[in-house]
Amino acid sequence: MNEFDLIDTFFKSETILPADVLLGIGDDAACLQVPPNMNLLVTTDTLVSGVHFRSEWDAYDIAYRAVCVNVSDIAAMAGEPRWATLSLTLPTVDEAWLARFAEGLKDSLTTFNTALVGGDTTRGPLAITLTIMGLTPPNAATARSGAKPGDVIMASQPLGIAALALSLLDSKGVKNEDRKQMMQALLRPMPRLDLLPFLRQYASAAIDVSDGFSADLQHICRASGVGASLRQADIPIHPLVEQYAPLDALQLALNGGDDYALCFTVPPSEFARLEAALKTAGLLCYSVGFIKEGEGLEIVGLDNKSRPLQAQGYLHF
Amino acid sequence: MNEFDLIDTFFKSETILPADVLLGIGDDAACLQVPPNMNLLVTTDTLVSGVHFRSEWDAYDIAYRAVCVNVSDIAAMAGEPRWATLSLTLPTVDEAWLARFAEGLKDSLTTFNTALVGGDTTRGPLAITLTIMGLTPPNAATARSGAKPGDVIMASQPLGIAALALSLLDSKGVKNEDRKQMMQALLRPMPRLDLLPFLRQYASAAIDVSDGFSADLQHICRASGVGASLRQADIPIHPLVEQYAPLDALQLALNGGDDYALCFTVPPSEFARLEAALKTAGLLCYSVGFIKEGEGLEIVGLDNKSRPLQAQGYLHF
Repeated sequence: MNEFDLIDTFFKSETILPADVLLGIGDDAACLQVPPNMNLLVTTDTLVSGVHFRSEWDAYDIAYRAVCVNVSDIAAMAGEPRWATLSLTLPTVDEAWLARFAEGLKDSLTTFNTALVGGDTTRGPLAITLTIMGLTPPNAATARSGAKPGDVIMASQPLGIAALALSLLDSKGVKNEDRKQMMQALLRPMPRLDLLPFLRQYASAAIDVSDGFSADLQHICRASGVGASLRQADIPIHPLVEQYAPLDALQLALNGGDDYALCFTVPPSEFARLEAALKTAGLLCYSVGFIKEGEGLEIVGLDNKSRPLQAQGYLHF
Repeated sequence: MNEFDLIDTFFKSETILPADVLLGIGDDAACLQVPPNMNLLVTTDTLVSGVHFRSEWDAYDIAYRAVCVNVSDIAAMAGEPRWATLSLTLPTVDEAWLARFAEGLKDSLTTFNTALVGGDTTRGPLAITLTIMGLTPPNAATARSGAKPGDVIMASQPLGIAALALSLLDSKGVKNEDRKQMMQALLRPMPRLDLLPFLRQYASAAIDVSDGFSADLQHICRASGVGASLRQADIPIHPLVEQYAPLDALQLALNGGDDYALCFTVPPSEFARLEAALKTAGLLCYSVGFIKEGEGLEIVGLDNKSRPLQAQGYLHF
């Protein structure tokens, strides 16, 4: 099977392409129709075998997670995903692996209403690069640079479970149902597209938590030229993290990566309206601190004393 | 140096971004303004060390070539490149290598009027994935599927020099000035953006020659549901190919990859006008045969006899 057969067999969709895809897979480039009243968002992420995933994982999960991780970046910009390209580097053609991978890709892209429009297949060490394009109305994208002193810092969900899952991958003392929940969080980190209207209406800045909550909040602070103060008592720690790693729970919640939660900031004048709107929608986010003048992070402990917080997260080099 | 410092040091441009880049490098996604009267073209290509380039090559050349190869796909769609994202996978941080790579990237993107708007840096075996986005007026993109029986098949330039360069990489019997010319063709394959207005006005189908002229023409034929007949006497063979590989010259011209010439088709009614327009512009393309009913390729030899031509080109698997 050569690369052209491979693309035809596994990645060319038989389903009808959306009307905004004028040319999809199989030409020199895809040709897309961007609505005239929308801005284009573009994000790209590479996942390397042995670094971002284990080669023995189900290829379905590898593909599914790669899509989630990229769509999460679009969600953090308050955008809706529309189109994707895939660059797949493979050591050999393993048709069973490819069939699973293509299935995971298709299912995840369908879930997020995103069309695969192009890509590239090459020989080499196993790696996946996805580029996702999305849309947002003009001036609605939530950049990292918009946080202002006084803004409330929000976390979209309880933190630390993906890092816990990673740390317990080879551990035997995990209950089956808990393992299932942890692996779901690690392998299918659901991009918070459900928060899109709230980000567009209320957020001053946003980022998705890939490196770790403290590290990603630090990115917002640096881009906005501000500092941040967190309240330890208000950090939402995932119950399984409390249960399986009580001594490291706060550390995992603040510094563990891969949660793909959203960290966002809201002007104080908008906070009550956001809370009410979230409640009406049946959603819950957590206010964990506030933006302040200066730089760096601090955390106010259970003893009510403030200490500097060293932002930590995954570093590749 | 961590990945954030690396991006800041090497890839964040100090020059002012074009007005259509609303958010560039350093956020969760780039935010771009697509003109309302244009379609978006997207292409992505991965280059893997040891497969697409040699690790000992100057990093400047590796980056420059990666950009050329991707821009060529946009050129083959009659598009103009505008924006790029880079996904760079590195085994270690070698600052000297990165500085050269960034310089090659910057120079090539500047040459093609393209802004780097985002990307990703990860640890792993050396590989580069570039995604290039371009623009084309509605209905102007030259797809592979538009060739019709009777259309004239054109080659944009003499063929085979990149494959010759590759075959002579380790050979000692090459004159310095010839080596320079060959390496230029291999390392800086100039995308034929100069042909853009002619493609838009006259071409029925187009593709860039990455796999090999016969293989890429075959892609047009398959996508268009037609066959093709080439004339051996009219195949433009690069003079250095004739000189260094006289016995394999036709083979290299027809089956050698990496030339990034354009292969395109023109309705017979437009052919005279195209020739005149090219001449006025001081450009020369080569008519090498015509599209016919049916499928497969044939070549009419110097003896005026027609033989089946097996399309050959580089296959990854």
